[in-house]
Amino acid sequence: MTRTVYVNGDYLPEDEAKVSIFDRGFLMADGVYEVTSVLDGKLIDFPGHLARLERSLAELDMQKPAQFDDLLEIHRELVTRNGIEEGMIYLQVTRGSAGDRDFVFPDPETTPSTLVLFTQNKPGLADSPVARAGMKVISIDDIRWGRRDIKTVQLLYPSMGKMMARKAGADDAWMVEDGFVTEGTSNNAYIVKGGKIITRQLSNDILHGITRAAVLRFAREAQMEVEERSFTIDEARDADEAFITSASAFVMPVIEIDGAKVGAGVPGKVAPRLREIYLEESRKAAI
Amino acid sequence: MTRTVYVNGDYLPEDEAKVSIFDRGFLMADGVYEVTSVLDGKLIDFPGHLARLERSLAELDMQKPAQFDDLLEIHRELVTRNGIEEGMIYLQVTRGSAGDRDFVFPDPETTPSTLVLFTQNKPGLADSPVARAGMKVISIDDIRWGRRDIKTVQLLYPSMGKMMARKAGADDAWMVEDGFVTEGTSNNAYIVKGGKIITRQLSNDILHGITRAAVLRFAREAQMEVEERSFTIDEARDADEAFITSASAFVMPVIEIDGAKVGAGVPGKVAPRLREIYLEESRKAAI
Repeated sequence: MTRTVYVNGDYLPEDEAKVSIFDRGFLMADGVYEVTSVLDGKLIDFPGHLARLERSLAELDMQKPAQFDDLLEIHRELVTRNGIEEGMIYLQVTRGSAGDRDFVFPDPETTPSTLVLFTQNKPGLADSPVARAGMKVISIDDIRWGRRDIKTVQLLYPSMGKMMARKAGADDAWMVEDGFVTEGTSNNAYIVKGGKIITRQLSNDILHGITRAAVLRFAREAQMEVEERSFTIDEARDADEAFITSASAFVMPVIEIDGAKVGAGVPGKVAPRLREIYLEESRKAAI
Repeated sequence: MTRTVYVNGDYLPEDEAKVSIFDRGFLMADGVYEVTSVLDGKLIDFPGHLARLERSLAELDMQKPAQFDDLLEIHRELVTRNGIEEGMIYLQVTRGSAGDRDFVFPDPETTPSTLVLFTQNKPGLADSPVARAGMKVISIDDIRWGRRDIKTVQLLYPSMGKMMARKAGADDAWMVEDGFVTEGTSNNAYIVKGGKIITRQLSNDILHGITRAAVLRFAREAQMEVEERSFTIDEARDADEAFITSASAFVMPVIEIDGAKVGAGVPGKVAPRLREIYLEESRKAAI
């Protein structure tokens, strides 16, 4: 089946979905994005993703391409047209195309933002075998730019990190800066020690994960202790458990770091429990 | 006149020049570029730009989209079709489109690189009033990723830097990391003190400028002393002269840094002389 995607007001077959070569997303990585998961045909954490999108746009002086209700309608229309029960919706906004290449931002009055959305059908997203088996990660230097709190499309290094992980026989890479773990290539990183959940504090150094915020809230509501601070790879290897969170992976146990087992080398109790709570609560709140 | 541009084998009117929304250049900034200047209808430093392109591609395990001779022919064809006497040719290669979004690199056997080229007509490029008047720069933090030697399209921060400069009433920004100037937003940075030309040594921290290499060679041939080392903004403000080099700006004097005059606050002797030599020699070697 050919996917129907959305490009600047039009619903199009995926093969016809194109942007100008002068789009600033293509020429200068001048764009931001969000990924929203779909479960039971409904949107997970949608208001959180939209709030972060607005923040990313504001940080870059970029125009909002549409209002909340319109974006919600486009998301729902794509879910319907593509028959998505479980999967993701990707949304990207760029500073548009002024018809030529220039470092200087174009006038937003005459150059509207580009808005692109498409679905990814992923049956079995919630009932993931990886969530049961656990993931292996390697550690790599974090050499990304300094504003990782803005969800830009500058994803070349995270992409290279995934390839480094794959070559090392692992699933993902945790990035390390000044001795401390920042985050995974497309997820936030956590360890559990003595029952306490430890994850890096928010700053410009990491993405302010929507799933992170929800999981920490659910953890606290379940009386689990949460500490937001930096940790090292050594501390992580010495932890009882490790895990990651993201909008499309939800909560995933990490069972190996740089070839060394974390805890018993199998998923522990905290990560699977948090995944369960997250999925249950998110399904209830889905729209 | 409508420009004719090049996209993956086709010469197209600029309005019809598009790439898939799934192109990794658009979704992940997974692309590299080069800009070659045109003077007298001929290409300046073309072999240097092609060599750097090959290096960028190799560093990212990205496929070469075409051989030297084919790329030369496309450049020349665009110059002819668009009647360019003075201007630039922009070339971008991305890791192509595998028809969906995935951090993992697609198989190059089934997913060819995307190749895009377009001209920018700039009559008066060589006889620039800015070269006679000099430029004003501000200093900003360098928060770019750690592989600036690879000429990727991750240009959001340089673009933001240009906007910061513009807001401050300046022409460009010099970026500073750990106390030392790395480079301008789209050019290499130099100072002159006691007749000596000082510019940062090559590393992963800066672009290995093609114009930089040529200008330093010409300077040495003209018996000027060259020192390749890092310098601070304070040292730059205290210098006799300052200037930048790039493929499209050639050599441009910098007369003001963060509001303070450099030297007498007008172009000195070294930068204009280097511009003259560079233009003369480059025109001779143009192809």
